[in-house]
Amino acid sequence: MDKKPFRPIFCVPYKLMRKKEKITIHDIAMEIGVTASTVSRALNNHPRISETTKKMVLDAAKAINYKPNRIAAALRHGKSKLIGIIVPTINRNFFSSIVRGIEEQANALDYKVMISQSYDEYEKEVATIEALLDARVDGIMVSLGKNTHSFEHFNAVLQKGIPLVFFDRTTDELNVNQVTINDYLSAYQATHHLLEQGYRHIAHFTSHMKIRIYQERLRGYKQALLDNGINFDPTLVVESNMQLDGGQKSTRQLLDKNQGFDAIFSASDYAIVGALQELKRINVKIPQEVGLVGFSNEPFTAFTEPTLSTVDQKAVSIGKSAATLFFEMINTDQKNKPTVKKVVDANLIIRASSQRF
Amino acid sequence: MDKKPFRPIFCVPYKLMRKKEKITIHDIAMEIGVTASTVSRALNNHPRISETTKKMVLDAAKAINYKPNRIAAALRHGKSKLIGIIVPTINRNFFSSIVRGIEEQANALDYKVMISQSYDEYEKEVATIEALLDARVDGIMVSLGKNTHSFEHFNAVLQKGIPLVFFDRTTDELNVNQVTINDYLSAYQATHHLLEQGYRHIAHFTSHMKIRIYQERLRGYKQALLDNGINFDPTLVVESNMQLDGGQKSTRQLLDKNQGFDAIFSASDYAIVGALQELKRINVKIPQEVGLVGFSNEPFTAFTEPTLSTVDQKAVSIGKSAATLFFEMINTDQKNKPTVKKVVDANLIIRASSQRF
Repeated sequence: MDKKPFRPIFCVPYKLMRKKEKITIHDIAMEIGVTASTVSRALNNHPRISETTKKMVLDAAKAINYKPNRIAAALRHGKSKLIGIIVPTINRNFFSSIVRGIEEQANALDYKVMISQSYDEYEKEVATIEALLDARVDGIMVSLGKNTHSFEHFNAVLQKGIPLVFFDRTTDELNVNQVTINDYLSAYQATHHLLEQGYRHIAHFTSHMKIRIYQERLRGYKQALLDNGINFDPTLVVESNMQLDGGQKSTRQLLDKNQGFDAIFSASDYAIVGALQELKRINVKIPQEVGLVGFSNEPFTAFTEPTLSTVDQKAVSIGKSAATLFFEMINTDQKNKPTVKKVVDANLIIRASSQRF
Repeated sequence: MDKKPFRPIFCVPYKLMRKKEKITIHDIAMEIGVTASTVSRALNNHPRISETTKKMVLDAAKAINYKPNRIAAALRHGKSKLIGIIVPTINRNFFSSIVRGIEEQANALDYKVMISQSYDEYEKEVATIEALLDARVDGIMVSLGKNTHSFEHFNAVLQKGIPLVFFDRTTDELNVNQVTINDYLSAYQATHHLLEQGYRHIAHFTSHMKIRIYQERLRGYKQALLDNGINFDPTLVVESNMQLDGGQKSTRQLLDKNQGFDAIFSASDYAIVGALQELKRINVKIPQEVGLVGFSNEPFTAFTEPTLSTVDQKAVSIGKSAATLFFEMINTDQKNKPTVKKVVDANLIIRASSQRF
């Protein structure tokens, strides 16, 4: 009696018979008659696979519309091609323009960007870092929240060797690569411009002094006064939340205390609009009687009457610089590398609110 | 001779001996003396686990600071507690406020939100949908890009049974739950207000007619004219990109053609600022000679001179409605359910630019 060798019966699962849900490397392998392992190594640019085979695999992959599952790939290779960005709020032209700069660079390299907001809350920043790590992002770029008082949540990122870049709102408590604008120089130039226009009693609107950008802007303002032989008067420095109402309050505070001032340099555009509104309400002439300069070049500064002088922070450039820094990090071992701190120069935009001559 | 039963030697891996990287359900199980499977079922609120055990597990999890890996959990249960949002751009107060509304609801239910921009490009919208599916989000909320001409990329979302909600910019080509504002009624009210103020030759600034919101706003404008016995004049309807320069161009077009007009109702705030600038440049008095009403209540409309009347689209409400709709969907089978179309009423804000009396 002939004895046939035992052969297991392979069943095609019903689901697969009905519809092929996803094209896999096995389909590519079948298409060109190589093993799945060869396909996988070709797709991952393995040095042992010939250029001819790589090209054949890539062409076949393209032809049958093969799309690797990014998360599955991330679990295998640690590459999701996703970058997580955390900003205090997207509702500021400055931050949304930085994101645009990052995205332009990232998209060119086939990376996707996901944005989260911390709303300046420490707890939200911590939770978002966790969510991004869970989502296996390839890197994280952050502008710190105003209420971020501890930085331990970033240690998890650093320990995993995931590229981390800070932009604009940074801290010196961690060694993290960062891109900032030259806040000191911008404030110096803005104050210097007001002095050139003949203003002598220049007030300064600022916010929480623990935040580096406000420290730096105050420092630039002071130095410009000093270099022009004007004594620094601390009663002309007013702290607020830097919103529209903050600017209104700070202005009333100066007026009520009868502080003589003939100009305001504000570390925020929203606060300078508040000042503009308060001063116009009591018929103070801008720029003849009081000169105004803001900070950030928010779109509305070009729509007010008079139009507002302000500092253009070149947000798109900051974003591009941060992305360039990020892509330099992503393919190199960051251990024992010195921390990189890039500084982008800003531009003073002189409009009607500060031009007496 | 005594024969000891064979016992394999269990080795504690060196890595684990040095540092426990992550607290797992096994640690909770050990802590309270139940099986890991019981812990898992308790954490997932399984009906077969008693309330006492559930409480014990949750207390222990909290005590030892257990944090589930969201992606691992997503792979097992399909729950990442992540919602992906796609907007044309975050650089609009309207969209960022909608996102805030969504996020307020989502955060209260321990869901995280990740935002992506399509920049109105069809290809970016398609690629973002893929990236979100790969990131195993629990749901997707989208405001369509202006150049989205085909909607097949949403079929993958619908076929996987992942909740999908459209807001503001929607299409009737797919049966997708959606939240929009009452564009027709808002435009009707804005036009009616201008007529009440005695304006009779009202121009309308609009954009691509294939987009539903612009169709609806034109329809409301026409109906208000009709109801007040004014003939619709198609030469007073001007299409543009709805940006600042678009508004300037549209205004010059009306002026150059010597079209008599005494008011403009614009479907965009940016375009109405462009009109304001052009008219002021040639010393036309606003609102005495020409009345202006915009659309969206962008912050700068309160900063111009005169301040601009506009339609407040209650963006935060739209966001909250969309999120509520989403959470209703997430726990129910969507098959054979009718499509839900929520409509939020907007608010006309009357400022100086349209008040003659």
